[in-house]
Amino acid sequence: MEKNIGIIGLGTVGESTVRSLCKYSKLIEKRTSLNVVIRKVCDSDNSKRRVATKFSLPFTSNPYDIINDPTIDTVVELIGGVSPAKEYIIESLKKGKNVVTANKALLAQEGKELFNLSYKVGRNIGFEASVCAAIPLIRSISEGLVGCEVKKLYGILNGTTNYILSRMHKEGISFYTALKEAQNKGIAERIPNLDIDGIDTLHKLAILTYLCFDLWPSLKDISVEGISRISNLDILYAQELSYVIKLLAIAKREKNKLDLRVHPTLIPKEHPLSQVSSTFNGVWVEAEPAGELLFYGQGAGGMPTSSAVISDIVNTSFLHTQTLKETNKFNLENIKNLRMRYYIRFMAVDKPGVLAKISKILASLNISIASVTQKERKKGKFVPIVMITHEAKELDVRIALSKIDRLDVIQAPSQLIRIDEL
Amino acid sequence: MEKNIGIIGLGTVGESTVRSLCKYSKLIEKRTSLNVVIRKVCDSDNSKRRVATKFSLPFTSNPYDIINDPTIDTVVELIGGVSPAKEYIIESLKKGKNVVTANKALLAQEGKELFNLSYKVGRNIGFEASVCAAIPLIRSISEGLVGCEVKKLYGILNGTTNYILSRMHKEGISFYTALKEAQNKGIAERIPNLDIDGIDTLHKLAILTYLCFDLWPSLKDISVEGISRISNLDILYAQELSYVIKLLAIAKREKNKLDLRVHPTLIPKEHPLSQVSSTFNGVWVEAEPAGELLFYGQGAGGMPTSSAVISDIVNTSFLHTQTLKETNKFNLENIKNLRMRYYIRFMAVDKPGVLAKISKILASLNISIASVTQKERKKGKFVPIVMITHEAKELDVRIALSKIDRLDVIQAPSQLIRIDEL
Repeated sequence: MEKNIGIIGLGTVGESTVRSLCKYSKLIEKRTSLNVVIRKVCDSDNSKRRVATKFSLPFTSNPYDIINDPTIDTVVELIGGVSPAKEYIIESLKKGKNVVTANKALLAQEGKELFNLSYKVGRNIGFEASVCAAIPLIRSISEGLVGCEVKKLYGILNGTTNYILSRMHKEGISFYTALKEAQNKGIAERIPNLDIDGIDTLHKLAILTYLCFDLWPSLKDISVEGISRISNLDILYAQELSYVIKLLAIAKREKNKLDLRVHPTLIPKEHPLSQVSSTFNGVWVEAEPAGELLFYGQGAGGMPTSSAVISDIVNTSFLHTQTLKETNKFNLENIKNLRMRYYIRFMAVDKPGVLAKISKILASLNISIASVTQKERKKGKFVPIVMITHEAKELDVRIALSKIDRLDVIQAPSQLIRIDEL
Repeated sequence: MEKNIGIIGLGTVGESTVRSLCKYSKLIEKRTSLNVVIRKVCDSDNSKRRVATKFSLPFTSNPYDIINDPTIDTVVELIGGVSPAKEYIIESLKKGKNVVTANKALLAQEGKELFNLSYKVGRNIGFEASVCAAIPLIRSISEGLVGCEVKKLYGILNGTTNYILSRMHKEGISFYTALKEAQNKGIAERIPNLDIDGIDTLHKLAILTYLCFDLWPSLKDISVEGISRISNLDILYAQELSYVIKLLAIAKREKNKLDLRVHPTLIPKEHPLSQVSSTFNGVWVEAEPAGELLFYGQGAGGMPTSSAVISDIVNTSFLHTQTLKETNKFNLENIKNLRMRYYIRFMAVDKPGVLAKISKILASLNISIASVTQKERKKGKFVPIVMITHEAKELDVRIALSKIDRLDVIQAPSQLIRIDEL
């Protein structure tokens, strides 16, 4: 059976997909009886014609040469960004084509509209490559856990930030040194904000929320914090307390309440998720009746991502039509109302009575302290004091911190990192 | 759309599947538009009628009441063992039904015949539950890695042996104490040989070989060793050398050579696979172009396994027909010809000249020593000497050991455990 595809976008992932398909098409045909034929490749940048030439493929710089080609049954969108990718996908679906995309930003923002349209026209959108690249996570959740209720999901979904935090842990270097290193190695972008501010992780969390809870969340309702304010001091203290700091996407469900957020988190160093280092991604899922699961693999890179794109190209032929998910009646939790444990680092003047002032404010807001560490002594100078709290309400902690930060013995702002024992 | 199924076998997995289906059928229908209806449940043991009664389902003790029922489109076989499960599956396929099974022993031994038949009649066999229970591993490899070449696979596939080894590592207890504990907790069977001798792991390796390399291996061609000869002394030395001992299923491919084996293995304690503890299963896969992947989850238990059975029940409706895999022209490696590193523990008389005798024999067979440890000193008594070799040929190592074991200063048999740096 022939499967005719067109690929729009010949960046890293596009070129890798072409290379992998050419290399493994015989293997795929043997396994599935499917002969995947690349009918046309497209890039708005005419210089990408060299990719087409290298693999003897027809090239066009006009995506509608693919979208309007009646011999093509699957359009592979690999240009990224919201526009014009959205228009290309809509037009492709309307022309009766299946779509494969790696475009997490687009799905996170426009997923509801796109999936509703795909349902309406009876076609599929494959999006395995949009989250955790090489890890077959989308397929594992949507098919493997089709009879399960996901209770909790913790994801290390961004390789760049995980690389930076891993280097800080291992080498004791600062955030900016680790970022520079990542940029020099091509792991971080020149303008790295989408990664380090947690936006990329947020996009992937939105897609996983759709998968696990049949709900497209509004991105602005999800609390997001990046990693740029994590200092090597915090890493050091976390390690001493037997924790590792990871940037996590968190989704927890309790009855009809859904708690979604992205922030750096102290997790126990014995937990399997804490072992997910360097550029790797890892996703910890607790579901009923499946139990605890961990998925681990390369979350970025041309070749690993091509593996996911190809699995979608092959499987969209066989997939049943996506169903129209009714929006679940979940109430999104506001992070201010949550209760959890906190790591707080104050920079305080080393003199008698300071701890009493801090403790008094915490006590007035019902925040009780599990441990206090002050290692350095520098009479009259600012030294770090690290506190671990018992469970407390986020709003109370924020109020307490704003009060403490106004004390003249404190060098504001104090550091606040959430703890999750998983 | 209605999906009518019959379940044969109401043991732990059968009963859990009924329970999970009843609990989550609404969720499944919402997600897939599929209304899964259990038309009949069957067990040869009439006392299992209580399960049917509990969930208000029709019961029969005759499996042919299900196999011959024209209203049933999928037969779920959960009785285990080769016969009569094989006959039930053959008859079901011949009647045009899809089959879902958790039966690893059957598939490992009769998989080729059963899958050829399913191809011939145009029906599917779902077998997600046969390997690693709750982990969507079968689906991840067959669909997620459909465009990949698997190069290496290392699996901790048996929860019982992993529990025993984990307890030995953590508590320093003996194999027999850990086995007793596992039996008392219901983790090990009263007659535990299928697990502890590596047979269950072998069965699962055979199924994974089919998935990864399109080949049903002959079980007798695969070298298998269990864990009963692992002493707490070995665990202790392994830990000191920064290794963990795991029972691994190993599959490595190099061109047309395939290396398949099951044995206890020293693996580096920093490797993510070494973190897979207690009753959990873990599978480490290296594939091109996907890269390195780890799958982790509950490998046994009624409820986790029911998650996999249900995913098959739902997905066999949508799956394309399995293709007829031509037997790949792989040559199976004989373990005797492999080269690897070894952990060897001799019990030797503590007197001058013993190490010279051992070293001489090893040198005569071109086995070079990377490290030697002798900690205890008990003049004239047997004490452990632990050696780590550089890469050596298995056959040479075996010959050397048989010669060394004949020395009167040695308390035979010496211990030999393979090392893999992964």
